[in-house]
Amino acid sequence: MTVDVTFEQLARAVAGFPRRTLGALVFPGFQALDLWGPLEVFGDCAPAVRPILIGVEAGPHPSAQGPAAVADFGLQDPVRPDLILVPGGNVADHVGNHSLLQWIRDRSADAELVMSVCNGAELLAAAGVLDGRRATTNKRLFRGIAAAHPRVQWVARARWVEDGRFVTSSGVSAGIDMAFAVVARFAGPMLADALATRIEYERHRDPGWDPFAAAHDLG
Amino acid sequence: MTVDVTFEQLARAVAGFPRRTLGALVFPGFQALDLWGPLEVFGDCAPAVRPILIGVEAGPHPSAQGPAAVADFGLQDPVRPDLILVPGGNVADHVGNHSLLQWIRDRSADAELVMSVCNGAELLAAAGVLDGRRATTNKRLFRGIAAAHPRVQWVARARWVEDGRFVTSSGVSAGIDMAFAVVARFAGPMLADALATRIEYERHRDPGWDPFAAAHDLG
Repeated sequence: MTVDVTFEQLARAVAGFPRRTLGALVFPGFQALDLWGPLEVFGDCAPAVRPILIGVEAGPHPSAQGPAAVADFGLQDPVRPDLILVPGGNVADHVGNHSLLQWIRDRSADAELVMSVCNGAELLAAAGVLDGRRATTNKRLFRGIAAAHPRVQWVARARWVEDGRFVTSSGVSAGIDMAFAVVARFAGPMLADALATRIEYERHRDPGWDPFAAAHDLG
Repeated sequence: MTVDVTFEQLARAVAGFPRRTLGALVFPGFQALDLWGPLEVFGDCAPAVRPILIGVEAGPHPSAQGPAAVADFGLQDPVRPDLILVPGGNVADHVGNHSLLQWIRDRSADAELVMSVCNGAELLAAAGVLDGRRATTNKRLFRGIAAAHPRVQWVARARWVEDGRFVTSSGVSAGIDMAFAVVARFAGPMLADALATRIEYERHRDPGWDPFAAAHDLG
């Protein structure tokens, strides 16, 4: 389905929503599309959503693909985002970073919604905020992550999983579909479809769509 | 189709290819996914591809969505990328930037391949490098861009268009499919499919797939 609306119609619809700050975590080795896919979707909801980047410290953080993104704030800055996004990438270097995990615990307690993409879910799991919750993650890395964090109810076959305030997506590009699902939750599927048409993206609307689980013999 | 290969198999395949530098242009107001979608795809081809960002000057450039990317080099730096990527976004602010257009002309003359995403094609067209060539661009903005640059043979219904060394894609998310098509051109469709599976993306393989042209009454 494609929905065409004018820029003005879209702007009018979006302007009526409450303003929310999206705080996306960045760390050296973040996966490029994990971060910038959802940033595109939420950033296109301006002024309803204002995306900011929160890094281990303020300043440039290189992606796993090389080019760097600039963190607007560091973990010590008094920023309390309404929405939190945790990308994946080379998380092994950060899963033992106590300041980072404490930030995730503290800010998750306040936030309206906490999202992860790919193995960003491992940072949420390491922080303990997914204990007892249903969640998903990258399919290639699924078994190892699930084994390391047995308190989480890992769902193998899912593009994304919503469990209350926690929404976790499968690998890399799945973050884009998750972001649209969140926009649909807040603002309705019509607006999500209109935004998807504007970026010429055919979004997956079914959270159970997941050919990649089968590709990795996860059923 | 999904193809699963181990990281080691993929790394071995990729390591055998010639090394290429991908130089992606950035400017204030670049569209987030136009840039970072292809960066994900090409960056995942390391070490065969090394992505660098080239800005109006070196340093941070805010995206249209807010967060900033860091240009590794400026237009004056002596960098000659093998592959060039020009994202879209708020190009109206830059289409009159003579240094930028001259850089596009000079570097396109040397490059093995020149790509654009979305209305990044307008910068290529303004630089004159698409004269007489087939090309496509964002569908919502198509009519205006085509009217302003009549020397280009604009193709309305296309996910991407390959004309020799110039490959132009449709709006925003289309850049990801174009990037995979370029990887397939250099390294074969099997490797492109394997990389797509790793980022859990179902790529469009048909350059004529374009429901968004019809959505904008472009046939």
